[in-house]
Amino acid sequence: MNKPDHLVQMLGIEYPIIQGPMLGVTSPDMVAAIANAGGLGSLPVGGLSPHKTASLIRETKSKTAQPFAVNLFAHELTEVDSDSFEKMQDFLERIQAQHRIPFERKKITDLKFYHHTDQIDVLLAEHIPVVSFTFGVIQPAAIEQLKRNGSVLIGTATSVKEARLLEEAGIDMIVAQGYEAGGHRGTFLDDEGLPQVGLMSLLLLVVDAVSIPVLAAGGIADERAVRAAFVLGAWGVQIGSLFIACHESLASEGYKEAVLASQETSTALTQAFSGRWARGIKNSFMRQIEESGLKIPYYTFQNSLTAPLRAYGQQNNVTDLVSMWAGQSASYAQRGSATEIFKKLVEKLQHHGQLDF
Amino acid sequence: MNKPDHLVQMLGIEYPIIQGPMLGVTSPDMVAAIANAGGLGSLPVGGLSPHKTASLIRETKSKTAQPFAVNLFAHELTEVDSDSFEKMQDFLERIQAQHRIPFERKKITDLKFYHHTDQIDVLLAEHIPVVSFTFGVIQPAAIEQLKRNGSVLIGTATSVKEARLLEEAGIDMIVAQGYEAGGHRGTFLDDEGLPQVGLMSLLLLVVDAVSIPVLAAGGIADERAVRAAFVLGAWGVQIGSLFIACHESLASEGYKEAVLASQETSTALTQAFSGRWARGIKNSFMRQIEESGLKIPYYTFQNSLTAPLRAYGQQNNVTDLVSMWAGQSASYAQRGSATEIFKKLVEKLQHHGQLDF
Repeated sequence: MNKPDHLVQMLGIEYPIIQGPMLGVTSPDMVAAIANAGGLGSLPVGGLSPHKTASLIRETKSKTAQPFAVNLFAHELTEVDSDSFEKMQDFLERIQAQHRIPFERKKITDLKFYHHTDQIDVLLAEHIPVVSFTFGVIQPAAIEQLKRNGSVLIGTATSVKEARLLEEAGIDMIVAQGYEAGGHRGTFLDDEGLPQVGLMSLLLLVVDAVSIPVLAAGGIADERAVRAAFVLGAWGVQIGSLFIACHESLASEGYKEAVLASQETSTALTQAFSGRWARGIKNSFMRQIEESGLKIPYYTFQNSLTAPLRAYGQQNNVTDLVSMWAGQSASYAQRGSATEIFKKLVEKLQHHGQLDF
Repeated sequence: MNKPDHLVQMLGIEYPIIQGPMLGVTSPDMVAAIANAGGLGSLPVGGLSPHKTASLIRETKSKTAQPFAVNLFAHELTEVDSDSFEKMQDFLERIQAQHRIPFERKKITDLKFYHHTDQIDVLLAEHIPVVSFTFGVIQPAAIEQLKRNGSVLIGTATSVKEARLLEEAGIDMIVAQGYEAGGHRGTFLDDEGLPQVGLMSLLLLVVDAVSIPVLAAGGIADERAVRAAFVLGAWGVQIGSLFIACHESLASEGYKEAVLASQETSTALTQAFSGRWARGIKNSFMRQIEESGLKIPYYTFQNSLTAPLRAYGQQNNVTDLVSMWAGQSASYAQRGSATEIFKKLVEKLQHHGQLDF
């Protein structure tokens, strides 16, 4: 049996194509549309409360009877020094004043963020068939409980070292996330610096390093890239940016337009919005924070501090204030429904004799 | 006729595989070995005197009757401010003292660097069949003279904008150089920052933007990557790192060992050695210059200033002082002769039904 054929059997889907989890962009409608079209939709719930997690899962289930993945953040909790926390608030107060956004100073102890361990009971009760995660490895107890409950586990790696660690932890599959990918880098081992490895290199090296299925992510927004990933040894692909501008996307109209008009050089890696490195379309907030020279509080602190600003930008379509996560191939994104976009991709692949597994 | 078949006809070679020009690594023996095996060897002569250029070309011709490419640097001449020039010399004096390397202070006016226009007469007289270049576009007069003389011209692009500019200038083919690539970035339009686009994104976008043949470069050191590049629409591939550790390579033994032992995260982009951004295996010279916070004089000034240090490192096998240019897939490099390595690659491709054009 070839690799993609094996993958679809393991996941109980029709085509070896995963819609990438994009928190703030992916809606239950998008997940259900992909699931109903034969792919694997991924519902992002990283950092959400157990209640919100359950509610999004139930909403998705009400729209599809097909399997879908739920995506967690598996980071370790970090600390922040009060000096950089306060200086960043001073900076954000000035930015928010420029846009007449009310500012409310926060205390470190005010911030509430849910850990993935808070969400496991919901995933177990809902019998989620596929649980994917990024930013680390989920806790050993969670791995054991979820696997016993029948969930397939998919981790995210940006280096060979991370891929090996996921395999050793008993994870079932690995998303190899190339440098081209939009959104947050899944990195969790950065003692030698942030891995910034192009998919052409990373995919081969991960495929050669582990024996579990590897999914290719980063810059895959076109049928040719899917075929190339299969040639490189991928069992399947994870596609994000292609769906940012679709009907079911939660992206603001300005964000969608920026993605459709983007070039391969439009994006950059930034820590500005969340404290973690992520790839998005360059905007003035990214530039201002860089020019400030300020130390950016690590995730999740910065993410909490920029929340009011991002919410305002989203509601008022001010693209200079929102994180417009997008990959280097985001210009291949399309308007239309997620179903149409997905089916068009599948048809092109079938035309080339791919997906005839 | 398919693209690779068309390419080999245009270049008068057997296989659509170019050995990347690696100044300091590629020898006339390497170029001749690749040419005799049916690929396109590339002789790097960027910045060399017309006399040295002619001598290397004649040496290569004495070893092969097959066509090969000669590779130029097509940068525009820049200036340097005396303050950063002197401060860098102070820094280098300290580093050289640590290694007991004699230091000789230079004057800006002392530095001699040949421009590609100085080399055109030699290329015309030698009737070079393929002239490739990087760092810019060769002068319009040179383009006209070389084309009239029967040379095929190949430019290097790291962005779609650069690729379009090369096509408009009348260049025959384009190497799309992905972020994964070892050695110098070919960038010449960096007003929006240095393009850092993974090959998975860049190749598709360049193929879709121009109508002349596109060659894929960056991270291609394995038969699967060659096949993936063809799927993405490449007419051919350019391969560098795979050959760094071969018999005909000029790399020091320590450099070869570092390449063979490298991981996908072993390299970084640096301006430390030449003033231009290039990807090489991290070493202490790169770290020291970064920690110094010094402004690095732009190419070619920094290149001239670090020449004694690099020469010492090369002669004495001190890997901390040499630029160990390598791509993110450099761990696929092999020992053996360039001929053997090339033939092994071709056999694997033929086994997969590729190269049966």
